[in-house]
Amino acid sequence: MKSRQRASPANSASERATMIERIAILGTGLLGTSVGLALRAAGFKGSIVGWNRSAEGAQKAFELGAIDSIAADPIEAAQQAQVTLVAVPIYATIDFMEKLAGVLGPEHLVTDVGSTKRLIVEAAARLYNTPERAAFLPGHPMAGKERGGADLSDADLFRSAVWLFTDDPDARRTPHGAELVRGWREWVAAMGSRVIDLDPSRHDELVAWVSHLPQFVATALSALLEEEVGDAPELKDVGGRALREMTRLGASPFSMWRDIAHTNTEPVEHALLALEQRLAHLRENLKTPELRDEFTQANRFRQGQ
Amino acid sequence: MKSRQRASPANSASERATMIERIAILGTGLLGTSVGLALRAAGFKGSIVGWNRSAEGAQKAFELGAIDSIAADPIEAAQQAQVTLVAVPIYATIDFMEKLAGVLGPEHLVTDVGSTKRLIVEAAARLYNTPERAAFLPGHPMAGKERGGADLSDADLFRSAVWLFTDDPDARRTPHGAELVRGWREWVAAMGSRVIDLDPSRHDELVAWVSHLPQFVATALSALLEEEVGDAPELKDVGGRALREMTRLGASPFSMWRDIAHTNTEPVEHALLALEQRLAHLRENLKTPELRDEFTQANRFRQGQ
Repeated sequence: MKSRQRASPANSASERATMIERIAILGTGLLGTSVGLALRAAGFKGSIVGWNRSAEGAQKAFELGAIDSIAADPIEAAQQAQVTLVAVPIYATIDFMEKLAGVLGPEHLVTDVGSTKRLIVEAAARLYNTPERAAFLPGHPMAGKERGGADLSDADLFRSAVWLFTDDPDARRTPHGAELVRGWREWVAAMGSRVIDLDPSRHDELVAWVSHLPQFVATALSALLEEEVGDAPELKDVGGRALREMTRLGASPFSMWRDIAHTNTEPVEHALLALEQRLAHLRENLKTPELRDEFTQANRFRQGQ
Repeated sequence: MKSRQRASPANSASERATMIERIAILGTGLLGTSVGLALRAAGFKGSIVGWNRSAEGAQKAFELGAIDSIAADPIEAAQQAQVTLVAVPIYATIDFMEKLAGVLGPEHLVTDVGSTKRLIVEAAARLYNTPERAAFLPGHPMAGKERGGADLSDADLFRSAVWLFTDDPDARRTPHGAELVRGWREWVAAMGSRVIDLDPSRHDELVAWVSHLPQFVATALSALLEEEVGDAPELKDVGGRALREMTRLGASPFSMWRDIAHTNTEPVEHALLALEQRLAHLRENLKTPELRDEFTQANRFRQGQ
């Protein structure tokens, strides 16, 4: 591998998690590739092997220096690694969890970046975290872009972002498995993320409000505006920055969001219905003093940001 | 006035609208002050007098170089100017239109920046644009920030923005009045804006979709999230950039939006109801192929951006 300029980490990498020396990244899209870059920027000196469903994505991650080598077989790559990061959509993550559980032992940690956690945590409880089996740490970095792919990867993607974990406090891991979990948490912090631990159900409810609801609102708003003003492109410019921001997520592809809609349906339905009712309330009060209360409440939310 | 560095305009200022030498800006908030700065940056060499309801706002605009002098009386300032830009909320704009119509003659042009145009155009038809009266040109720059005030003013605010006019094709102006209108349009272009002319009713419908709907959605979303997660400030960070963008306009103050809600009620009601229905449709189809169609339609809107 070519040598690269790396940001010097806040704490010496040698003080941290020296036990993790071999990492496999399954899925070198935006998140997987960015993790590879961020690990290097944080001083990770071990090996990083990558696998991707499309060869181009793996090649791009390799060219960017996010991975040292490209694996032909993701299962073999995981067997040779201590930590395997699964960075693919949710149902594909569960597929990998099932395949890997059969071939990995307590000397391995598997972790993920899936956007909903209830199903993944259920699979982990069924397949991982016993003294005979590999450890599994459910993770969710709150970072991304409206489009995916290694091309858009960024070593700073996780800097100042929150990285959520929904670990099982009753996981029956070996001391070695527990040590790998601690080591991965330290690398996540070293990538610049703030770690927050949540119960998986609370996680899925919370992200329905702060992540999935904003996405589906942007999709619905963009789709509606396409119908109303889409035939007059010059009129889209009229909205300026405000409109661009409110519809940026409208570019997000269905392929990224289908699994989220399927695996977090009830919390998302609840959040969408609540917003529909809030919009109706606002609509019915455009000329009453209630409108002031809505603005005051909204202002308060932003003051906390 | 102190001399300042000024961006050199695309066309020589001397070729443009030399007839306009005295401008009054009534209301040196974000827009009024930014117009003063943008005129200077575009090479305007004449005088700019400013008036503001609060003395601090006028003083700030003066300190920033947006205006050369502060007027004690807005009516007198307009009488001494050739062009008066009224840059205050909508009902206050109509108040000024009524007061100014009585004291200005066909040697004057009054123009505005109001966000809705139907009521303002009705007042203009009643009070302006005859051979005996001052000219009035209804304008609306599609630029702004989620908060107002001279402190946030910016000489580049109108660069690459759209500046809408909803002029009356039957206005019976003197040749001098028509010349002032042409001159002001040239200065708007010189500030970097793209001019689009619209019928006032079409204007109000269009901005309901591309400006007012996004604002009220951001307000409703922010108010809802304040209720749901406002008691756990650390959880707001979880949403990251997407959430910050989708709620930025939640900081907009009621005082800026009350007049818009009152003067564009029906188009805004119509747009809000359409979005409520669209969100309900999406909610009912989180697990059906219809969801893909919504994402495809939304993607199409963004491709046009």
